[in-house]
Amino acid sequence: MAYFKVHFLGCGSACPTLFHQPSCQVVEYRDRLYMVDCGEGAQTQMRRMRLKFSRLGHIFISHLHGDHFLGLPGLLSTLSLLQVSGSVTIHIFKEGAELIKTIMSAVCRDTSFEIKYDIISPEGGETVYEDNNLIITTFPLYHRVPCVGYLFREKPKSRHLNSQMLDFYKVPVKDRPLIREGADFITEDGLTVANERLTRPADPALSYAYCSDTAYNPRVAVSVKGVDTLYHEATYLAEYETKASARGHSTARQAAMTAAAAGARRLVMGHYSKRYEDTGAFEAEASEIFPNSIAATEGMTIEMI
Amino acid sequence: MAYFKVHFLGCGSACPTLFHQPSCQVVEYRDRLYMVDCGEGAQTQMRRMRLKFSRLGHIFISHLHGDHFLGLPGLLSTLSLLQVSGSVTIHIFKEGAELIKTIMSAVCRDTSFEIKYDIISPEGGETVYEDNNLIITTFPLYHRVPCVGYLFREKPKSRHLNSQMLDFYKVPVKDRPLIREGADFITEDGLTVANERLTRPADPALSYAYCSDTAYNPRVAVSVKGVDTLYHEATYLAEYETKASARGHSTARQAAMTAAAAGARRLVMGHYSKRYEDTGAFEAEASEIFPNSIAATEGMTIEMI
Repeated sequence: MAYFKVHFLGCGSACPTLFHQPSCQVVEYRDRLYMVDCGEGAQTQMRRMRLKFSRLGHIFISHLHGDHFLGLPGLLSTLSLLQVSGSVTIHIFKEGAELIKTIMSAVCRDTSFEIKYDIISPEGGETVYEDNNLIITTFPLYHRVPCVGYLFREKPKSRHLNSQMLDFYKVPVKDRPLIREGADFITEDGLTVANERLTRPADPALSYAYCSDTAYNPRVAVSVKGVDTLYHEATYLAEYETKASARGHSTARQAAMTAAAAGARRLVMGHYSKRYEDTGAFEAEASEIFPNSIAATEGMTIEMI
Repeated sequence: MAYFKVHFLGCGSACPTLFHQPSCQVVEYRDRLYMVDCGEGAQTQMRRMRLKFSRLGHIFISHLHGDHFLGLPGLLSTLSLLQVSGSVTIHIFKEGAELIKTIMSAVCRDTSFEIKYDIISPEGGETVYEDNNLIITTFPLYHRVPCVGYLFREKPKSRHLNSQMLDFYKVPVKDRPLIREGADFITEDGLTVANERLTRPADPALSYAYCSDTAYNPRVAVSVKGVDTLYHEATYLAEYETKASARGHSTARQAAMTAAAAGARRLVMGHYSKRYEDTGAFEAEASEIFPNSIAATEGMTIEMI
């Protein structure tokens, strides 16, 4: 069942330390990897966590502070050198795309590897990726510079067929797709068999929200309402709430308030200021408001539930 | 006596691996640090090796391949955030300076930390740094793109005063600086005392040459003639000599040939291709031609002798 996971590659903030790397996460969904933010050293962290470059097709950048995207040139150079896959798409603000293009044209001239750019809006509210199973949308965050979060949502799933009942009612194979979608079945005798007799309920569609750098703002909870797992930055503990606010960041307590207001099932924190060596205090502070709180650390993988 | 050392922060080549970081070295001379090349992750490696940011005043870039300078934006951002020293000077080709300026103006707008640029020539033959004790010059290398090496040379040192003899001949304090420089002394009686009676020989002036990416070329040995410690890239073993040549790189055997031709006292190698996990074979191959050969690895520090 572990088809939907999040890997934490970097949980630090602007100044990387020996304890924390700059921001980077990789969402694993079925056979594909989706990177969210790409701080310096992201490529090495991918190797360390045995995440295959060839599975990476999309990179989503939340904003243009260095600790969230300066790993791109090195990662893209390596992807080009290894020619591991045909292309990668970077979802990024216009100014970021221009900067990365400038850098890549300087360092990586002769390659058949294609780097595609999807220019996203700082307003949020866009669908930036969609396939049969997964949809990824942006929402606004409230930082010192334009910044968006990313919401990963599974699409509603089909119900499970009950093969014993299908056999009993002699349901032809051609009718089964519709029954998975909830249709009733009418037998040759004209008898209507309710869908609930032929199927079991669908698995829940799971969701993950990534709230990189943001000041506390009640609108964030509205944007991620009902999310299953909420990642929310917690740069500081509550003792520095004034500093957090001034710098467009949040405290663990505020991350927990957002998780509670959103009705999330689980909170994961990161983006710790370099002043903190230990993440236990973040869990303790958040848990007072929102019990199911986790402080992420580099190398951690969590399964979506 | 360990006032002149070289720290190896990254000994890998274009694709960093779990074994090797991209190119970066820090030359420590007295109380100052001089970085040579700055691959991605350089700032983290500095922390790991406990090299203080506040001692770093100059960064020398050999050429504009990503694995030799993509650590600059992150390192400079951190220096700016920490405001550890007033300024840093980057010695780099014109195109590199423009690129770094573009990146830094995007990621690091409001800072009092000054980044200075010294535009160097791809021709080599320039003095890029000089103080009372140390002089750093460039020399041409032979890569696929313009590339220079850096030669660190101590200036000739003063002779050691023999205080017993100075007292015996009643040499006034005001005369001593000249005597350190080699002057004879004339007593009140008109007797000339040879400098050799008043002093002991000066310590040797030591030197270190950094030959980043280069194909084998006999002219390199001419440029670094008589150097004490020669760092020379060894991307491949001799089995891949053709590939090395085609890509503007060298083999361990060729690095040793250059060390021997230069009359160096010691060879240090690095910039290993990702195909090699073990560096022992580089030492073995080079030592057949030049016995005093070392394969550098991340975290290694060698004292200049």
